[in-house]
Amino acid sequence: MSEVVGEPKVRLRDAGAARRRILDAAAAEFAEFGVAGARVDRVAAGARIAKERIYAYFGSKEKLFDAVYAEQVRAVLAAVEFDADDLPGYAVRMSEYFATNPAAQRLTTWYRLERAAGPGHDANIEANATRLAALADAQARGRLTTAFDPVELLSLVQAIAASWGTMNPEFEQHAAAVAPAARRRAVETAVARLTAPR
Amino acid sequence: MSEVVGEPKVRLRDAGAARRRILDAAAAEFAEFGVAGARVDRVAAGARIAKERIYAYFGSKEKLFDAVYAEQVRAVLAAVEFDADDLPGYAVRMSEYFATNPAAQRLTTWYRLERAAGPGHDANIEANATRLAALADAQARGRLTTAFDPVELLSLVQAIAASWGTMNPEFEQHAAAVAPAARRRAVETAVARLTAPR
Repeated sequence: MSEVVGEPKVRLRDAGAARRRILDAAAAEFAEFGVAGARVDRVAAGARIAKERIYAYFGSKEKLFDAVYAEQVRAVLAAVEFDADDLPGYAVRMSEYFATNPAAQRLTTWYRLERAAGPGHDANIEANATRLAALADAQARGRLTTAFDPVELLSLVQAIAASWGTMNPEFEQHAAAVAPAARRRAVETAVARLTAPR
Repeated sequence: MSEVVGEPKVRLRDAGAARRRILDAAAAEFAEFGVAGARVDRVAAGARIAKERIYAYFGSKEKLFDAVYAEQVRAVLAAVEFDADDLPGYAVRMSEYFATNPAAQRLTTWYRLERAAGPGHDANIEANATRLAALADAQARGRLTTAFDPVELLSLVQAIAASWGTMNPEFEQHAAAVAPAARRRAVETAVARLTAPR
């Protein structure tokens, strides 16, 4: 049996599975505690793997966070389609995604607070540029208000899409009384009022 | 001279000054690094005071954060008047405050991420309740749209007021091209479109 485990292909598959377990455990750890608060010991325990292997694979806690965050950015971009011609629909999808995956919204926020000094992620840089171009195009076609420029529009729409997850914690007792469908409708109506071509 | 220093009144004044220096150094440290990332050693160095005295005054790093945050909540509430009859004006004031005091916006965000499990701050609980009542009253007087209920309105307006400080860091290169006056105007126009009584 030990010979089989030693075969290159199996070793590669094992390494892939170990990497996957590390990333999943790290995503939960970072979402909860952020970069400074995360403990690689807990990630190791959660992934059932030696701490040393985590450092061997990822180099440092910070680089492990960046790997988790990069994967999450790709997941959000794949799951939530941006549509400059239907910003209310996009905002609702984004809002739903955050409601279903609060860990994703927390990771995004930790990234802004703790990792903003880096060179930035290509996926974010590209998504920003693509979306701004799409907004300008929708404005040129008369599908979108020109009361705001594309940079202002993107900032406003993202803020509204994220709004239910960004109030002070004391607000939660009030927010909890609003049904999920009403939360969705509030986001949709708000973005519709903002972006109607007038 | 040493007798003068030993007088109760002077000791009290010294203690007050030391407390002030600690809170100021701690506010800068927590804004930058959050609760988990903050180092009491750095706060002690910044306040020119022995670390032991910080623990004697505040008990723990977490309680020191809560003292800093409570002071900041009071400062924001004193500086930025809420007006349910003029939500665009309020949102602009709030947005300006965050633009001028980015540390305040960061502290607010760390609080949400790292200290949400606590009992909550009375000032936040009271401000939420007062504002929701004022919004309901403005709606009853026909000064405010009824397309959203007060909870939805407060969540949306706060999100828009904070919007320029909540995008991904890669967006900063685009946001930097928008002049402060245009940023203000975007917040004002957005809240006006949202809240007009129709």
